[in-house]
Amino acid sequence: MTPSCFIGVDLGGTNIRTARFASNSHIPEAKAKHPTHAAEGPEAVYRRIEEAIREVAPADLSEVAGVGIAIPGPTDPFQGIVLKGPNLPGWINIPLKEIMEPRLGRPVFLGNDANLAALGEWKFGAGRGHDDVLYLTISTGIGGGVITGGRLLLGARGLGAEVGHTLLDPKGPQCGCGQYGHLEALASGTAITRTAQMRLKAGQGAGSKVRDLVAGDLGQVTSAVVGQAAQAGDEFARGLITEAGELIGLALASLLHAYNPSIVIFGGGVSMLGDLLLEPARTKLRQYAMSDAYWVDCPLVLAALGDDAGLVGAGALVMEEAEL
Amino acid sequence: MTPSCFIGVDLGGTNIRTARFASNSHIPEAKAKHPTHAAEGPEAVYRRIEEAIREVAPADLSEVAGVGIAIPGPTDPFQGIVLKGPNLPGWINIPLKEIMEPRLGRPVFLGNDANLAALGEWKFGAGRGHDDVLYLTISTGIGGGVITGGRLLLGARGLGAEVGHTLLDPKGPQCGCGQYGHLEALASGTAITRTAQMRLKAGQGAGSKVRDLVAGDLGQVTSAVVGQAAQAGDEFARGLITEAGELIGLALASLLHAYNPSIVIFGGGVSMLGDLLLEPARTKLRQYAMSDAYWVDCPLVLAALGDDAGLVGAGALVMEEAEL
Repeated sequence: MTPSCFIGVDLGGTNIRTARFASNSHIPEAKAKHPTHAAEGPEAVYRRIEEAIREVAPADLSEVAGVGIAIPGPTDPFQGIVLKGPNLPGWINIPLKEIMEPRLGRPVFLGNDANLAALGEWKFGAGRGHDDVLYLTISTGIGGGVITGGRLLLGARGLGAEVGHTLLDPKGPQCGCGQYGHLEALASGTAITRTAQMRLKAGQGAGSKVRDLVAGDLGQVTSAVVGQAAQAGDEFARGLITEAGELIGLALASLLHAYNPSIVIFGGGVSMLGDLLLEPARTKLRQYAMSDAYWVDCPLVLAALGDDAGLVGAGALVMEEAEL
Repeated sequence: MTPSCFIGVDLGGTNIRTARFASNSHIPEAKAKHPTHAAEGPEAVYRRIEEAIREVAPADLSEVAGVGIAIPGPTDPFQGIVLKGPNLPGWINIPLKEIMEPRLGRPVFLGNDANLAALGEWKFGAGRGHDDVLYLTISTGIGGGVITGGRLLLGARGLGAEVGHTLLDPKGPQCGCGQYGHLEALASGTAITRTAQMRLKAGQGAGSKVRDLVAGDLGQVTSAVVGQAAQAGDEFARGLITEAGELIGLALASLLHAYNPSIVIFGGGVSMLGDLLLEPARTKLRQYAMSDAYWVDCPLVLAALGDDAGLVGAGALVMEEAEL
């Protein structure tokens, strides 16, 4: 049987999502969602990945060109090894390609989820038609992916495009990666939450809506709450989002010098604030870019595929790899 | 006649250097050097470029596969346009490819000189055998070039890999590009010269060899003088070089996250200080890299081709392009 479809898998700490795609389409022909139950350890998760794949795949797996899996953490895409799954206990150096291929009898490809989201946005989303794309996802952390000259940038070990770890302030706060002062430590959802709580506890934002939204329980303040207040025009909350956007703009100056993309795409929950976040980013980018040529034809836009970017990207990875 | 050789041109503000290469060799079969006399304007320079090429080329130009020209400034490699030649008065948006091809009757390719030096080091120098190379040239300014996945990284307009303009300190001093706080503004030869003069004039480095080397005429202090004193063990000078190295290390953390190379190559005069500069860079890189995986198999080494890197890279560009 000639393979006629592609399977994408989005392996998350909470859910395993799978989808079946036809060639050159990002509209799933079938979708499934199974709980990960990561605490039960890797072996149980392999089984559930297989189940979730079989749920969307044709009964005859030989119709499947291949399976792409988006991994939430550092991954060796060349050998198909999960180096570390931050939300997957016990996932250290797991050769997932080698484990899944005999179970499925089909080729399996792995990629970092932010890289694959970039691939998905490039092939089917906001980045269509561009050869040079910078994708950032701003949520709990800050991840990213880069298309350069019409190819996904991987680097020697597949660890490139970690744009959330652009160093902005050597004396800055601790980052999710354990080091200090990276963009993620300063402008992620986690950073916005931390700064908001700190300032409110210090008595700032006295009349702010943020306090009302959590009924005064400051431990309940999150970046989502801050975002909600900012959208409602709250000055204290807007200040926090503006600061995060400015820091993103500073990092963008370095990143545009590094990659010279023709579009920058923002995904992730915090990005949904749109221009509240992106306008301050544009201002700082323009202020620190070495020439107008970097930003004048390089719009900053929102992602088009939403939460499906990783899943679509995992399918697109197979389209790229299996069609070679 | 089947083309049998490649011509490289290094267009500098002072000299035009040319060389003829055989296929897959970086050892010139012939070399020439003509003064640029840039002040006479572009038209005179075109003529001298042609003369310098004809001096090394076979009498029958049909034996030449093509001509590569390394440009000291932002260049559109896709259309072959010099966007701006900082040391070439009047060179704004010069379509040099279009100008030179009818004069020579052979294909002409353009590239930014630091990008082409990276290409040269990758194909024939310290980066041989690597697919992912980060090259930095630390001299008056800081330039760079990147090989990713076995290809030169260009970006949408050919303006990528401007690693000297990684933002380190938004409140930092003015950069050669006009903006502020980029790596080049803090750790280039120009920056070392400025800081040294400033500190000496403020009375620091009272017993420093640097004062002796310029016989007390502080206006004569340059980064070369500081480097000479540092190599002789002078504490004041070593402090300046260590600080520059540390700043380079901070930028490297971001750049290794961005590109994940398997080797970092340093060219340019300031780099010749070797470990005096690179050891502090390694220390800071290790301190701010998000994981050991970025640097453990990624040595920081000196360039192998010296001043010829751009010339060799210009030849290598033709080998890449003309052999496609």
